[in-house]
Amino acid sequence: MSEAILVLNAGSSSLKFAVYGGASGALVPVLRGKVAGIGTAAVFSARDGVGAAVPEADLLQIAPEIGHDALIPLLLAWIAGNGVRITSAGHRVVHGGRAHAGPAKVSADLLEELEALVPLAPLHQPHNLDAIRSVAAFAPELPQVACFDTSFHRTQDRLAQLFALPREMSEAGILRYGFHGLSYDYIAGRLPEALGARAEGRVIVAHLGNGASMCAMRGRQSVATSMGFTALDGLMMGQRCGALDPGVVLYLMQQKGMSAEAVGHVLYEKSGLAGVSGMTNDMTVLQASDSAEAREAIALFCYRAAGELAQLVAAIDGLDAIVFTAGIGENSAEVRAMICDRLGWLGVTLDMQANAANATRISAAGSAVAVLVIPTDEEAVIAAATHRLGTDLG
Amino acid sequence: MSEAILVLNAGSSSLKFAVYGGASGALVPVLRGKVAGIGTAAVFSARDGVGAAVPEADLLQIAPEIGHDALIPLLLAWIAGNGVRITSAGHRVVHGGRAHAGPAKVSADLLEELEALVPLAPLHQPHNLDAIRSVAAFAPELPQVACFDTSFHRTQDRLAQLFALPREMSEAGILRYGFHGLSYDYIAGRLPEALGARAEGRVIVAHLGNGASMCAMRGRQSVATSMGFTALDGLMMGQRCGALDPGVVLYLMQQKGMSAEAVGHVLYEKSGLAGVSGMTNDMTVLQASDSAEAREAIALFCYRAAGELAQLVAAIDGLDAIVFTAGIGENSAEVRAMICDRLGWLGVTLDMQANAANATRISAAGSAVAVLVIPTDEEAVIAAATHRLGTDLG
Repeated sequence: MSEAILVLNAGSSSLKFAVYGGASGALVPVLRGKVAGIGTAAVFSARDGVGAAVPEADLLQIAPEIGHDALIPLLLAWIAGNGVRITSAGHRVVHGGRAHAGPAKVSADLLEELEALVPLAPLHQPHNLDAIRSVAAFAPELPQVACFDTSFHRTQDRLAQLFALPREMSEAGILRYGFHGLSYDYIAGRLPEALGARAEGRVIVAHLGNGASMCAMRGRQSVATSMGFTALDGLMMGQRCGALDPGVVLYLMQQKGMSAEAVGHVLYEKSGLAGVSGMTNDMTVLQASDSAEAREAIALFCYRAAGELAQLVAAIDGLDAIVFTAGIGENSAEVRAMICDRLGWLGVTLDMQANAANATRISAAGSAVAVLVIPTDEEAVIAAATHRLGTDLG
Repeated sequence: MSEAILVLNAGSSSLKFAVYGGASGALVPVLRGKVAGIGTAAVFSARDGVGAAVPEADLLQIAPEIGHDALIPLLLAWIAGNGVRITSAGHRVVHGGRAHAGPAKVSADLLEELEALVPLAPLHQPHNLDAIRSVAAFAPELPQVACFDTSFHRTQDRLAQLFALPREMSEAGILRYGFHGLSYDYIAGRLPEALGARAEGRVIVAHLGNGASMCAMRGRQSVATSMGFTALDGLMMGQRCGALDPGVVLYLMQQKGMSAEAVGHVLYEKSGLAGVSGMTNDMTVLQASDSAEAREAIALFCYRAAGELAQLVAAIDGLDAIVFTAGIGENSAEVRAMICDRLGWLGVTLDMQANAANATRISAAGSAVAVLVIPTDEEAVIAAATHRLGTDLG
């Protein structure tokens, strides 16, 4: 039986997992999978180490209405049935608060501390913590590690983390925490091979997925980021509004009689690409459409991305490189071109052929700013941290 | 009796006025004044055409508890008693909605249209409209002109005006209107004499007062601005938060049990310089303080101003000039220096002596970007528009 590390990313209705083995000392994924539709119509899918789909007959058989609690023991048993012994588990946890500038080994004290952060991330944190507890209930001796989306940004100066709110609110923790830190951590680790000495310079990483943010780095550390206290702020996203005049929230409640819950639903689920297009949050579908609304949604996404990028440039006093990553950043040559087309004044020039090919370096030879495409891998960061903190592989 | 134009700027508890005469054809202020503390402890003050305070004995005598309605007839009578015949009145009106790209002559139809915009600016619009009605009740034949803070920005492309909200919300008027347009209009008019041919280039005007915003211009027209749907968005201000993760508003209500009214009070009255310093919204007082909190408030103000400016640069593809105006912009050499110190990457270099002297041109000889200080004059813009639309001076 081979030994391996389990990586879990638990959401409200989904559970993603990856199993990293390390026969040769280097961690490589040997299984990846997902249960979607948890609580209503759960569907399990998985791929093996070389990316081939696990056949239906070999998949975990689950009831459509299965919940998180029942699912995790079944999943652990299924993984064991595939000849893998899990020696530690690493979890994506959205919020580590102010204290955690890196991953942390799970303990009763840590869980209590992370539970206190639930009000800061009520949509995600409870599910992340439930997954940790479910694993602990099934396998109490298994070392577990929590990896936070906020940790990478704890290197930021205080000015980058402050809102212009009353001091007592800042002191009570209403701060710009930033998210997507596991993705930025991964990209920061890849910068030296991609950029050489410039890796330590002024770099903006654009994590453009259904959730989207940007991080300004210097010395491969976070200096500023576009997401704030919640995952709503900053860039326009698939379904989220991004930066929005707070007066709009007050207007919808005071003048339109909406509840905070109803406003939250609009801002988290009905806005962004989906709201502006009136069609979908799926960039590939929008790009294939010739409707004016779809074109406008893409144009606004890129207009705002260029503006947020420029704002971040001010935090690092100029720009040496841009890195595009995540679903849209890795795959949409059109979006990259439309954003970079607004950044000529910064010295950004694309090589259109390299861009069309999703090449690693897509800037033109004479571009003052290097522009790269680097696929992100948050699970690899969690696996490495879990390996480091949780256990040694046999 | 000389003829003149009355300019009124009516707020919730104050009424500012100016009287512009034009014996030689050019409009010049012959009286300016203010009633503060309306409704509670009204105090009247006024200055003559050369800026000398009108002596107590010659001032309008008003009861401390006087309201807006009673005040305006008394003011008009007092002005007449000073030997001036008002031939038209111009008003600052905060919101002109989407329709008005310039000032408009007051009619019953216009008042009805502007009344419908009250929900978009409930703190200001009602007082602006009440002043128009009070003047009309006392002097029904007097031509009146409404000058809007939003008009100057109607040249903006649609992308600059859109939030990433559901289409139906944008169509219902939840848009980035922008404000401080009368100030930007004034500065745009001064640019040719200050910048020559570069006046038509890429210019950012920083209107930094107790309320603060920036406007990116090309061809002396608004291309983008930092304020959005309300006067809360964008720059950190004296008491307002500026840009804020909309998730903070939801958090304060859903997790902290605050009402929308209570949140609005914090964001409009208790935030910004006042909130971060815990002391005051007065920049001169903060600058004279050596407390760490005061220094932090000033530093955050400047950090955020540099970031917003950079974001606006992306909308105009680079930068030829920056203009500082309004109370802080015109008078605080320290704030200008701290903001420009973060903009070296854009080619901004200050002449520190010129900056300390509040000179018109404060950029160093070799600065790629011209930096200017130009005092604003919103009343002059209203007087000129009222002259143009309302009446000819005798």
